[in-house]
Amino acid sequence: MSKPRILVTNDDGIVAPGIKALVDIARKIGEPIVVAPDSPQSGQGHAITITEPIRLRKVDAFDGIEAYECTGTPVDCVKLAKNVLLKNETIDLCVSGINHGSNASINIIYSGTMSAAMEASLEGIRSIGFSLLDYSFEADFTAAKFYAEKIMRHMLEYKSDPQLLLNVNIPKLSLNEIKGVRVCEQGRGIWEEAFQESTDPRGEKYYWLTGRFNSESKTENSDLYALSQGYVSIVPSHFDLTNYKVLDSIKHFEQ
Amino acid sequence: MSKPRILVTNDDGIVAPGIKALVDIARKIGEPIVVAPDSPQSGQGHAITITEPIRLRKVDAFDGIEAYECTGTPVDCVKLAKNVLLKNETIDLCVSGINHGSNASINIIYSGTMSAAMEASLEGIRSIGFSLLDYSFEADFTAAKFYAEKIMRHMLEYKSDPQLLLNVNIPKLSLNEIKGVRVCEQGRGIWEEAFQESTDPRGEKYYWLTGRFNSESKTENSDLYALSQGYVSIVPSHFDLTNYKVLDSIKHFEQ
Repeated sequence: MSKPRILVTNDDGIVAPGIKALVDIARKIGEPIVVAPDSPQSGQGHAITITEPIRLRKVDAFDGIEAYECTGTPVDCVKLAKNVLLKNETIDLCVSGINHGSNASINIIYSGTMSAAMEASLEGIRSIGFSLLDYSFEADFTAAKFYAEKIMRHMLEYKSDPQLLLNVNIPKLSLNEIKGVRVCEQGRGIWEEAFQESTDPRGEKYYWLTGRFNSESKTENSDLYALSQGYVSIVPSHFDLTNYKVLDSIKHFEQ
Repeated sequence: MSKPRILVTNDDGIVAPGIKALVDIARKIGEPIVVAPDSPQSGQGHAITITEPIRLRKVDAFDGIEAYECTGTPVDCVKLAKNVLLKNETIDLCVSGINHGSNASINIIYSGTMSAAMEASLEGIRSIGFSLLDYSFEADFTAAKFYAEKIMRHMLEYKSDPQLLLNVNIPKLSLNEIKGVRVCEQGRGIWEEAFQESTDPRGEKYYWLTGRFNSESKTENSDLYALSQGYVSIVPSHFDLTNYKVLDSIKHFEQ
């Protein structure tokens, strides 16, 4: 039986340590192909490149694994993989990450990592975005790799939903310290934004975005709670943004 | 009683005709402030600018209305308005658009117009993204303005949900031809992507994204169906991306 085809991407760029962790796992359990941005793309959300051309360059970054760097966004990488590089192939799984930093709660909205995963889901590819709650370049991915492999194996066996999309976050803890895995809902939180206001050498004012994440509530079934208790969180996610709860209560807007 | 404070933004840039339509309405029913990108930002999704500074410039673009152009993304515009310009004020409503082109169905995911509206919702501001199904710069906004005003007035009266977010799309029809307004669910559709492959003057290959929108199904309660029947569609939307339906069926992923 042929090995599952696994598309690997990220938003931190093809030379970030986190993507290497996923390539290592994908190599063990399937046949990976890597298409990732040539530079960091954090905060890119679901951006796509429409007003300029995109370049794709074959690179030898992962010891014998077919890999490409792309001048576009994480979503562009997935589109190119699906529609150009693997046009006539089935992609069994897409994995994005491992992101350096949390994509729990509302962070999914801003995340290039999760947007790449969501784009794959849209295109009918089961897909997982992985994030480790450690921004450091020297982050230890040992525990993250252990759990990423477990969850990727579950995904490959779970064939009933061809668009299943998971947002997986891993606490900054050692393998011994992590208590297990929890399937959760997206927690409610918000970035309390501030802008650093400053003046450039030419005397012009500028603003630089800064902020502090504030978890509004940590209900027990939320990803924020699971992470705070030492669990890996899995939030099944989707791209239907309809707020079904209010459909009836705004019916009078039709008048 | 003081007039409602209305934040106006878009993703086509501060000089696009569509934003003028919203400023005209906002001026009539409230006190507008405009913060919009200084250049077109289509396809920016929920991108934010974190690795470089953002500039904000006061401009006289709307005949006496307080207005700023911003070097950042649509989401940056909303963040700056909320956290810098209107730090100590209540914003009663945010309107984004009128976008030149549809943001119905899955287009919400890629849309800078809707991301700006969603960011406002996240920050506790009731918010509407408007889009007209006409890409032309010379598009006729007469019908769009008529319905945008009606819906903005509904929103200002509807105080029970401080985060209510609407995705409004307007068919390319005259005021007489439009049949009315429908509150809908997000329709299922997908972009069938293709990349135009070409070679630059230096002999290097490049790709340019192109594609055709394919509505997978037009169920009668979807925005795609309403628009095809000549109605303005309103989809109440939100930023909770949890796929609640599959929570139980992947519980075994915890093992």
